[in-house]
Amino acid sequence: MKIADLELTRENLAQMMDYSVLGQEADEEAIIEACRIAKEYNFKGVHPNPIWAQRVSEELDGTGIETGYVLSFPFGANPTEIKIAEAKYAVKILQGKPWVVDMVTNIGKLRGKEYDYYRRDIAEVAKVCHDAGVECKAILEVAFLTDDEIRAACELAAEAGADWVKTSTGRGGSPTLAQLKLMRDSSPKHVKVKCAGFGAHWSPTVALTAIMAGAERLGTRRAPWIIEEITKLMPELLKKIRA
Amino acid sequence: MKIADLELTRENLAQMMDYSVLGQEADEEAIIEACRIAKEYNFKGVHPNPIWAQRVSEELDGTGIETGYVLSFPFGANPTEIKIAEAKYAVKILQGKPWVVDMVTNIGKLRGKEYDYYRRDIAEVAKVCHDAGVECKAILEVAFLTDDEIRAACELAAEAGADWVKTSTGRGGSPTLAQLKLMRDSSPKHVKVKCAGFGAHWSPTVALTAIMAGAERLGTRRAPWIIEEITKLMPELLKKIRA
Repeated sequence: MKIADLELTRENLAQMMDYSVLGQEADEEAIIEACRIAKEYNFKGVHPNPIWAQRVSEELDGTGIETGYVLSFPFGANPTEIKIAEAKYAVKILQGKPWVVDMVTNIGKLRGKEYDYYRRDIAEVAKVCHDAGVECKAILEVAFLTDDEIRAACELAAEAGADWVKTSTGRGGSPTLAQLKLMRDSSPKHVKVKCAGFGAHWSPTVALTAIMAGAERLGTRRAPWIIEEITKLMPELLKKIRA
Repeated sequence: MKIADLELTRENLAQMMDYSVLGQEADEEAIIEACRIAKEYNFKGVHPNPIWAQRVSEELDGTGIETGYVLSFPFGANPTEIKIAEAKYAVKILQGKPWVVDMVTNIGKLRGKEYDYYRRDIAEVAKVCHDAGVECKAILEVAFLTDDEIRAACELAAEAGADWVKTSTGRGGSPTLAQLKLMRDSSPKHVKVKCAGFGAHWSPTVALTAIMAGAERLGTRRAPWIIEEITKLMPELLKKIRA
């Protein structure tokens, strides 16, 4: 998707955003409030920690908003056997609802050039997802990676059947927009790119630039604020983008 | 244990320390190097991410040094069913070696006062550990907790059969020494206290103060440096402690 093809309405932007509520300290009250906000904006998805996934799916029932199941989050350093168990648990509690898996890949295995392990780890989880009819995102955690490692990760994730590659968890450093663009350029067209992990550095400008760099989805707890700011600034921003 | 009862030798201090190598980016080379260092100092344990637990146990074979299996690390926000699967996987790969489980408790469930869930979550994992003949530590992540919540967590962990309570993962804020002391004061005598999570704020002084506040184990990647510094400073520190 190019920014020129995207009609920058409030509604379209909200549908490009996954609202995350991934603080490990979040209690049920915080989760329910996040769902209320997501419904208000009609975000594409809500991404809580696994313990809250079922509750979120109930709260979002009938809205069409996806529940995001984050798998081996945020370190990804679990054996594949555990990741498969996580994916199967997600199927069990979310089947029949709109949902998706965002899995963290095995960063140390990539850095150690254990490519077969890295690819199979993603492929096994993607298989459980696809058998259940849902998409699987592979989180690369690019802040730890060289450009060569990012290229390799994108190729391996595509070979493994990942539907998306995603920059970051937000718990291992921010991505750069150059890294995001490299992911887009290193992935086949059918693999989509999600940008996440800017933390306090998220802004309307970062969001729009990420979309221009090739991101089809943004994941952030700042989604409501970004939507409000972009809506306010829209005419001016559009003028600049089109200039 | 009181500091007065502890003979502060290099060897005794090393046996109070778990050496952690929990960076999600660690590759096999980093893991093997960590084991080499742990053998050099004869630390009590080495705590890697789960993907490396088996490799670590092989590297430490015959040394008596424990492999620490960190469970649902660092967020703890997994459903109990997944935590049990993790514990059973740990038994499968580590049975017969010296090992231990450091599990992250469900912080959001504690904060939401879902005490039955919080207690059962720990109890189910502790049961798998005890059936396998090993100890189970419950990580509270005190930086997110009020003093009342810390007291409740210590009581619930003890009721659940945890052998240790541990301050922090190092990925959710540092503990304070007052919180550490509160954990000691709120736990039955048979439950031991492990102090971790000071990150870059670990120092010889923090380590010794933590021991004085009741910690019987320290977990840190700075263990080698702390040992070296304390060894150098020992005569002077001892003079101060005994003064």
